[in-house]
Amino acid sequence: MIKVGIINVTGYAGEELARILCSHPEAKVVSATGRSAAGKRLPEVFPHLWQLDLPVEEEVGDVDFAFSALPHAASAEAVAPLVRGGLPVVDISADFRLGDAAEYERWYGAPHPAPELLGEAVYGLTELNRPAIGEARLVANPGCYPTGGLLALAPVAKAGLVERDVIIDAKSGVSGAGRGLGLTYHYAEANESVSAYGLGGHRHLPEMVQELSRLWPEGGSPRVTFVPHLIPMTRGILTTCYAPLADEGLAWGEKAGTEVLGLYQDFYRDEPFVRVVTEPPQTKHTWGSNVCLVHPTVDTRTGRLVVVSCIDNLVKGAAGQAIQNMNLMLGFPEAAGLDLPAVYP
Amino acid sequence: MIKVGIINVTGYAGEELARILCSHPEAKVVSATGRSAAGKRLPEVFPHLWQLDLPVEEEVGDVDFAFSALPHAASAEAVAPLVRGGLPVVDISADFRLGDAAEYERWYGAPHPAPELLGEAVYGLTELNRPAIGEARLVANPGCYPTGGLLALAPVAKAGLVERDVIIDAKSGVSGAGRGLGLTYHYAEANESVSAYGLGGHRHLPEMVQELSRLWPEGGSPRVTFVPHLIPMTRGILTTCYAPLADEGLAWGEKAGTEVLGLYQDFYRDEPFVRVVTEPPQTKHTWGSNVCLVHPTVDTRTGRLVVVSCIDNLVKGAAGQAIQNMNLMLGFPEAAGLDLPAVYP
Amino acid sequence: MIKVGIINVTGYAGEELARILCSHPEAKVVSATGRSAAGKRLPEVFPHLWQLDLPVEEEVGDVDFAFSALPHAASAEAVAPLVRGGLPVVDISADFRLGDAAEYERWYGAPHPAPELLGEAVYGLTELNRPAIGEARLVANPGCYPTGGLLALAPVAKAGLVERDVIIDAKSGVSGAGRGLGLTYHYAEANESVSAYGLGGHRHLPEMVQELSRLWPEGGSPRVTFVPHLIPMTRGILTTCYAPLADEGLAWGEKAGTEVLGLYQDFYRDEPFVRVVTEPPQTKHTWGSNVCLVHPTVDTRTGRLVVVSCIDNLVKGAAGQAIQNMNLMLGFPEAAGLDLPAVYP
Amino acid sequence: MIKVGIINVTGYAGEELARILCSHPEAKVVSATGRSAAGKRLPEVFPHLWQLDLPVEEEVGDVDFAFSALPHAASAEAVAPLVRGGLPVVDISADFRLGDAAEYERWYGAPHPAPELLGEAVYGLTELNRPAIGEARLVANPGCYPTGGLLALAPVAKAGLVERDVIIDAKSGVSGAGRGLGLTYHYAEANESVSAYGLGGHRHLPEMVQELSRLWPEGGSPRVTFVPHLIPMTRGILTTCYAPLADEGLAWGEKAGTEVLGLYQDFYRDEPFVRVVTEPPQTKHTWGSNVCLVHPTVDTRTGRLVVVSCIDNLVKGAAGQAIQNMNLMLGFPEAAGLDLPAVYP
Repeated sequence: MIKVGIINVTGYAGEELARILCSHPEAKVVSATGRSAAGKRLPEVFPHLWQLDLPVEEEVGDVDFAFSALPHAASAEAVAPLVRGGLPVVDISADFRLGDAAEYERWYGAPHPAPELLGEAVYGLTELNRPAIGEARLVANPGCYPTGGLLALAPVAKAGLVERDVIIDAKSGVSGAGRGLGLTYHYAEANESVSAYGLGGHRHLPEMVQELSRLWPEGGSPRVTFVPHLIPMTRGILTTCYAPLADEGLAWGEKAGTEVLGLYQDFYRDEPFVRVVTEPPQTKHTWGSNVCLVHPTVDTRTGRLVVVSCIDNLVKGAAGQAIQNMNLMLGFPEAAGLDLPAVYP
Repeated sequence: MIKVGIINVTGYAGEELARILCSHPEAKVVSATGRSAAGKRLPEVFPHLWQLDLPVEEEVGDVDFAFSALPHAASAEAVAPLVRGGLPVVDISADFRLGDAAEYERWYGAPHPAPELLGEAVYGLTELNRPAIGEARLVANPGCYPTGGLLALAPVAKAGLVERDVIIDAKSGVSGAGRGLGLTYHYAEANESVSAYGLGGHRHLPEMVQELSRLWPEGGSPRVTFVPHLIPMTRGILTTCYAPLADEGLAWGEKAGTEVLGLYQDFYRDEPFVRVVTEPPQTKHTWGSNVCLVHPTVDTRTGRLVVVSCIDNLVKGAAGQAIQNMNLMLGFPEAAGLDLPAVYP
Repeated sequence: MIKVGIINVTGYAGEELARILCSHPEAKVVSATGRSAAGKRLPEVFPHLWQLDLPVEEEVGDVDFAFSALPHAASAEAVAPLVRGGLPVVDISADFRLGDAAEYERWYGAPHPAPELLGEAVYGLTELNRPAIGEARLVANPGCYPTGGLLALAPVAKAGLVERDVIIDAKSGVSGAGRGLGLTYHYAEANESVSAYGLGGHRHLPEMVQELSRLWPEGGSPRVTFVPHLIPMTRGILTTCYAPLADEGLAWGEKAGTEVLGLYQDFYRDEPFVRVVTEPPQTKHTWGSNVCLVHPTVDTRTGRLVVVSCIDNLVKGAAGQAIQNMNLMLGFPEAAGLDLPAVYP
Repeated sequence: MIKVGIINVTGYAGEELARILCSHPEAKVVSATGRSAAGKRLPEVFPHLWQLDLPVEEEVGDVDFAFSALPHAASAEAVAPLVRGGLPVVDISADFRLGDAAEYERWYGAPHPAPELLGEAVYGLTELNRPAIGEARLVANPGCYPTGGLLALAPVAKAGLVERDVIIDAKSGVSGAGRGLGLTYHYAEANESVSAYGLGGHRHLPEMVQELSRLWPEGGSPRVTFVPHLIPMTRGILTTCYAPLADEGLAWGEKAGTEVLGLYQDFYRDEPFVRVVTEPPQTKHTWGSNVCLVHPTVDTRTGRLVVVSCIDNLVKGAAGQAIQNMNLMLGFPEAAGLDLPAVYP
């Protein structure tokens, strides 16, 4: 068994790593850190993890692999010495997602703590970047929103079948905001309410622009409008993506939908965690699982592609994909520990 | 006091009419019909309406004004003889919203039951159609989604500041689907889940296209993509609208947002039920009230207008707007019975 | 119009006072205080109260009547000088509910800030204490749990038909915990979960014991076990009360239920806000309204009374009852401003 | 691998059996029946079970073991021939829980379809009946409410430390009512509402009385009042049990709580799925898992035991316990397939 450390186990992403790894056949959590809870046992913080009776420590112990679930900036600071020391790491924070340190500073408001590692960090959207992830020692786990958006758009973008002009309207459960308190996430405020946020520019936008730019055959940055919404549920992101069909490439009219569906089915045919579905999906069907459901359609009245994707923001959108990446980095079967069905209803 | 009848009080729109009219200073519900519940007292069906101890009847009694909350087709059949007999009516169903009987048949799958009344029916989006509503004897109350979308887009469309190319991504609470049972609306299925629906074309689409067509100064049908989503909450619709800014008319860059905001504030300055807000609104702040919150922004990176609106789907999206229309038709103050704040939290 | 002040408008009880008073025919909020929000306008804190465009102040202004919605201890300190100055006050905090300063100190952990006022404070469970409230200048508004429990038990206790041995199992929505942040009330923690709390003794217990003691004809303190539960909803308390039937007084068997029902119907016959119902009630049927639904039953297998009551914790359990008490104190019709039906669904 | 059949896979209990068995190391679902869905593939009914691509059949195929998740009466009819043919079966319906056919007829309104099997059916509350289950060929899986109530009360009842006079106040998520439609379970009706039901006598009452009667050392039927409540969440039951402490057996005062806690810890020390906890538990900490959390306390003011337990109604309250019983019947490790932590948050 590989010895795994979780840096900052006390947030939802850290907790979810611990939960999922409880049933991993090749990896075992042996060390978990957390600033506020240091000194407690893990089950005191998370009673449902009573089988994982570790101390919450200040510093990660002797491990073969580490996940960081720290907030940005703190994560790069904690991760950099580990990576330099040769430890393979998946960083769930945003710190190594943007390849350009200036862009990082623009969006995160402070200089990057370890810019010299940006060059070797690999963006960990597993399905789009598998070979590089397999060779990486530092993987930047994607944001939850980019995961849903990129998997929804990749097949048509790579095929050049839509214009580089994209609207991403995402609906997220409240756990995406983390375990830190705030009036917006107070039960009586968030329940029975929907709201948009980040209209001036959400930090996941540059990440999506960067990764979408790599997809179109002719290259070049797409115009991306991204609006996230907060939804009164705990887990799940549903992403609705809109893009004009390119003038060439698809049949006209009703056939376009069939062609697009076929394209997606081919693109994701062998993927263990992406399923192309022919009925509108529900986030509920991904609850607790690493699957991403993708439903491509064509609005023939307007010539627009409309793709809907669903993920569990804490699994495929965070801890699950991180473990999927670890599996690749360590040569385990990609689905190891991740092959459970969603918990429904 | 005006004597009011509610045809089909047993659904959510009918119930909501009854609830709101309990505190109307000029109108009193004296007759309420309902097929399944005929023979019961109204408080047996809706215990919270114990003050309104009427029988649920088969046919509407002697009234001065009627609301129909029947499903489409049935509504036109019930309403037509009343209108012909001179009774002023607000029809909450879709039957008199589309002006073109052929378009109606295309979307509703059967010939219109009373096409001869289409010419005189007035589309009841109060803020956009006030004079005609005041003169009408038959008002077609707008659908819940068109209400949110049209109020969000009207100021810029009328000013010609956006192109006729619109995406409307709407998020609705489950009460919008009515009181009829269905697996999709079963608690354990709808809770903790979000889904898109109507991707092939929702019946509120032609209504939005028809009404949007009237707004642009140069006329002409806009291209509209409309995707509704089901959200795990009881009441509320948040609508996010996207449209490219027209090449002319607005300042460049950051100023565009300020100009657009000013335009909206001017447009809705004297409206009792539309409030332009400078922070992203929450549906919770409209819960149980007739208000529509509108939040216009400009995505300066892409040159797109992004407007968010919030309504309570059962009030401004149905019963409240119907009463607002009745007030105009009968010469009452427009806000009579409708001036209560939202119930928060 | 009477000029009303709300001390600490920024919590849920304070907000709810402001919301309900918007439609009060005789009283108008002219001053509102709040420590954290002082300097803002009220609609900046609560956008749904945009019609009530007052400043949030440090100190209450010139008013004819004041409500305090401060936390305990702070409330007595703020209220005492006002009462001494002759201003009629309803205090929503716990400070004047317990008549015994020593008991107060035992449960609230500090000496009472104004023990000299305890003697004249009247416990404001309106239905049980109407004459004294009408003469009071300081009314202690009951806790939300005692309101639900006392209205459920009063008729049989006063009739001596149950033993002084009571179990009160209450289920409350999360708004009962207030607007202050805490992990327990964080959306992702409270959603999809039920828990009991206060098992070692909740502060509403001595209040219930004190008031129940006054009910039985023979006097004497009842044995009361009270267990509150947190339920994933925003508003509402459902209280289930259990007590052994006294050996004498009721018929045996099935008739006992009918007798008990009749007793409750007689007891509450003329009450504007208590309704005895013959089907199990739902908290939803009290949402946003001042009504209390009471459903008395007899478990003939065990000889136990089982009574279920429902209230909206923020209305009859807080702000609504406070206004009901103000109405009595000022000689207004008791239901003034409070006669709206619940908002359903 | 053992070949398993699920009779009536299309309800929530049947679906949950299928979901959990996806990760069972020794058993594999090879046949699944369902009347309404016969002819479809299982993933058409439950998209999240796409890995289990079986046809939904009319009749169960060639299997080594069967679960029945049919409604009562239909279940006994389907199960009886299988049991007579020698197939080991766990019946999740109520049909074989009551040992007395007359009692069954009294509560279920029709004669028992297979009374001759009542004698050999074993009540499958695993922790209390392990040896008999291991030898059984027909196990009656307990109701969800009895599971929560019996595990909460067994230690003190067996020790004779409480009187035979018990109140069980249970709070259940809506999935407990199954997948069949009903207005009570319609999203807009069940959301933001709590209600009691079954006040006249719920069918789980005789089951609890029967099993509790076996626990007290002196025997004899306890007086049991049982009131279930419907809570706006999908999964979970929290059960609050109240019973007077017996006059002898426990220390007085504060020590009583410590003694009772020790008793529970001893009683459940070696149980893989029952955890005695010292803080009030949340149903969330059992979500999707087979664990039962038990929190015993003493109300020293009244001399009452108050025990709170939490389970996931679909797992320990239905499918999980059924698999736990299968494991015993087939000689597998008891926790096989069931050792995953709860999914939190």
